[in-house]
Amino acid sequence: MHTNKAVHPGVTVCGHTYDQYLDMVNAFHKHIAPGVVIGGLMVDLAYRNLPQGEFFDSISETRSCLPDAIQILTPCTIGNGWLKVIDLGRFALTLFEKHSGNGVRVYVNSRKLDDWPELKAFFFKLVPKKEQDPQALMAEIYLANTSIFDTMKVQVDLTCLKSRSRRDVAICPLCGEGYPSCDGEICLSCRGKAPFSYFRESGSKKG
Amino acid sequence: MHTNKAVHPGVTVCGHTYDQYLDMVNAFHKHIAPGVVIGGLMVDLAYRNLPQGEFFDSISETRSCLPDAIQILTPCTIGNGWLKVIDLGRFALTLFEKHSGNGVRVYVNSRKLDDWPELKAFFFKLVPKKEQDPQALMAEIYLANTSIFDTMKVQVDLTCLKSRSRRDVAICPLCGEGYPSCDGEICLSCRGKAPFSYFRESGSKKG
Repeated sequence: MHTNKAVHPGVTVCGHTYDQYLDMVNAFHKHIAPGVVIGGLMVDLAYRNLPQGEFFDSISETRSCLPDAIQILTPCTIGNGWLKVIDLGRFALTLFEKHSGNGVRVYVNSRKLDDWPELKAFFFKLVPKKEQDPQALMAEIYLANTSIFDTMKVQVDLTCLKSRSRRDVAICPLCGEGYPSCDGEICLSCRGKAPFSYFRESGSKKG
Repeated sequence: MHTNKAVHPGVTVCGHTYDQYLDMVNAFHKHIAPGVVIGGLMVDLAYRNLPQGEFFDSISETRSCLPDAIQILTPCTIGNGWLKVIDLGRFALTLFEKHSGNGVRVYVNSRKLDDWPELKAFFFKLVPKKEQDPQALMAEIYLANTSIFDTMKVQVDLTCLKSRSRRDVAICPLCGEGYPSCDGEICLSCRGKAPFSYFRESGSKKG
């Protein structure tokens, strides 16, 4: 008889086995990054502490790793607008009811990291990346599970999260492309905000 | 004999059939949004015009829809850092070789939209959303395919894209959480940059 023995029994992540979640991370993020694995456990904890409500939006307080855990495990993506990245540089996420702003925030409790030397070294970058022991770190992530996190209730200020309006779209007289007219007479790119220079077929131009 | 007849023959998106891509959009973005479908055709065109190189990063010039097409079809995600959203408000994307910055940008040519009334109304928001005809729009997206886009070579300024360093992580003396020490004596959240107020178990505090 053939058995698929789980490598990581006992722990589930939003209804998936831990091993299934590692596969999902690898498929989307393209490698099994510790931060995305930790993020999955945070999303799981957030789901178990949701306030009442049907539709939840999300905030990641870092650009690194955590947004992918949210995109893998929840309906929230960058492109559908239900995930916002507000880069406060903290490894924390919030799920909140989209109309009331009532939500739960999950964050890493720095004091609880004292019990986990590899996790502490990872979060506080105490050791250069090439000197880290990835296997020992992954073992601690699995064993620590959600014990290094705390949750708090939050009230999200919904007005802060509004994207600028694209209701009125104009054609920029310089580049000829559509842009939100609230940005002014010319588009942001033609005001020097683009991170590239470019070359159109009909000529060349600084972007 | 059972046949799976394609609803949209002839058009492929990065090696997937058009119908497969619609399913992928639905699975990730949670509905078949016109902007993500259009974005997939843009990614496909970008891939066919890549400069030499092995590893490509990406830029989306809008937060809306386009980042999800990139995340569905390329290895680039927000969380692995290979996708950057630089919100210039234009429906355009760039794939670029990560070391040289040589890349290709794909954008909507506003003049070419004159041939496609539904696409023009969609991009320039000429009709309120509830008065749009979604089926007619989806038909035009399929028929127009990549004909409404242009490509241009770009040189990305790699220094502009660097995230701020998280090399040195400190514990914020106010909230007690880890944060990039380059942000100053206290973290950005405790300086009022968080979009929520929160309540810790041990007391309450403005976030």
